[in-house]
Amino acid sequence: MLCGAKVTDEPTKIAILAFDGITALDLVGPYEALSRVPNVEISVCGKAAGVCRTEAGTLGVVADLPISSVSGSDILLVPGGGPKGISMLIQDGEILEWIRSMSREAKWTASVCTGSLVLGAAGLLENRNATTHWRAKDFLPRFGATYVNERVVESEKILTAAGVTAGIELGLRLVEKIAGLEIARAVELSMHYDPKPPFGTGSPKKADSETIQTAVEGLAKYS
Amino acid sequence: MLCGAKVTDEPTKIAILAFDGITALDLVGPYEALSRVPNVEISVCGKAAGVCRTEAGTLGVVADLPISSVSGSDILLVPGGGPKGISMLIQDGEILEWIRSMSREAKWTASVCTGSLVLGAAGLLENRNATTHWRAKDFLPRFGATYVNERVVESEKILTAAGVTAGIELGLRLVEKIAGLEIARAVELSMHYDPKPPFGTGSPKKADSETIQTAVEGLAKYS
Repeated sequence: MLCGAKVTDEPTKIAILAFDGITALDLVGPYEALSRVPNVEISVCGKAAGVCRTEAGTLGVVADLPISSVSGSDILLVPGGGPKGISMLIQDGEILEWIRSMSREAKWTASVCTGSLVLGAAGLLENRNATTHWRAKDFLPRFGATYVNERVVESEKILTAAGVTAGIELGLRLVEKIAGLEIARAVELSMHYDPKPPFGTGSPKKADSETIQTAVEGLAKYS
Repeated sequence: MLCGAKVTDEPTKIAILAFDGITALDLVGPYEALSRVPNVEISVCGKAAGVCRTEAGTLGVVADLPISSVSGSDILLVPGGGPKGISMLIQDGEILEWIRSMSREAKWTASVCTGSLVLGAAGLLENRNATTHWRAKDFLPRFGATYVNERVVESEKILTAAGVTAGIELGLRLVEKIAGLEIARAVELSMHYDPKPPFGTGSPKKADSETIQTAVEGLAKYS
């Protein structure tokens, strides 16, 4: 059967970067899809091993390995985060060099939300189409990328996802690449991904100006 | 402004249960929505403080507080997990008593996915409509509940969500309850929740029998 056939193969190695200021769903959306695939080996890693806190500070996720001990992965995934967390990442030479090195070896390099700005800062998005959270789209051209308003944008071996929840779709697309369409369809079912957004305001095109202003000015702020 | 007006109010206190075997997205979906609301105080708690691992074991989330130190929350949220994690919870008298006690005081008690079975084991779903992951629906009647095939089911002050990704919709519904429609619309936009499931197989009604079989038999198994 499917599981049995896979067990004798080498596992698909997936490295996910965690950091302080991370948006938890940017990590967990794709994690949830990828962890359902038979024979994957997922490593959550950080600049150092230890707990990384979200931007709000009220949830900790564990980086089990330091990036210095992680290489040779099939997939590298860079989640997004708040302005403070992302600013720190894009100024961190060690992180950026690790991302470049990992990406050279990886079959797929992927980001969610503002994670694409980190790929950009690492020089991976020059002359590429890419996407990000709608609020961050004007940053992409600074890294030589062209913003595309889609949930997931694929440019050769680099996949970028739009904001936050789009990481679920990125995860499902990566599942298809590593395990095929039938497993990917089953993972979507297993995640019960039959969404019905309650308010229908999930993109700037669908929201009115008041809602856009509230999203920019009226939600919780952390820094 | 909205933020300023909220600061002088008491924060809305939200307790989220973490445990070994948890489905990470069941916790993080609603967390991501709720943490964007001005003036909330979210506590992730476990039987003991410390790291809880997902069913696959490859992601750790931190329970910052032991349940013994958490009371008087406005919202109690119980995420779901794999069979092993949920079996442990529904046999744990201390956890179930804490859930009952918290629920008596809370304005809203909520679950995601198989978390509703834990609410059921605590006796909270008797004679109520409720939902859960499609694979777990036959368990609900054992707790006196009637399964309803919707993303989020509301029965007085108890809200249950369907599988995994439905926790995002649950979180958005809770945001509306505690912060009003305009903040909830803005949170949906802030989460870029304009989903486009790539395969269209996210519920048993939409998937064919082969995909259902693969979801049940052909994905990663942990125990």
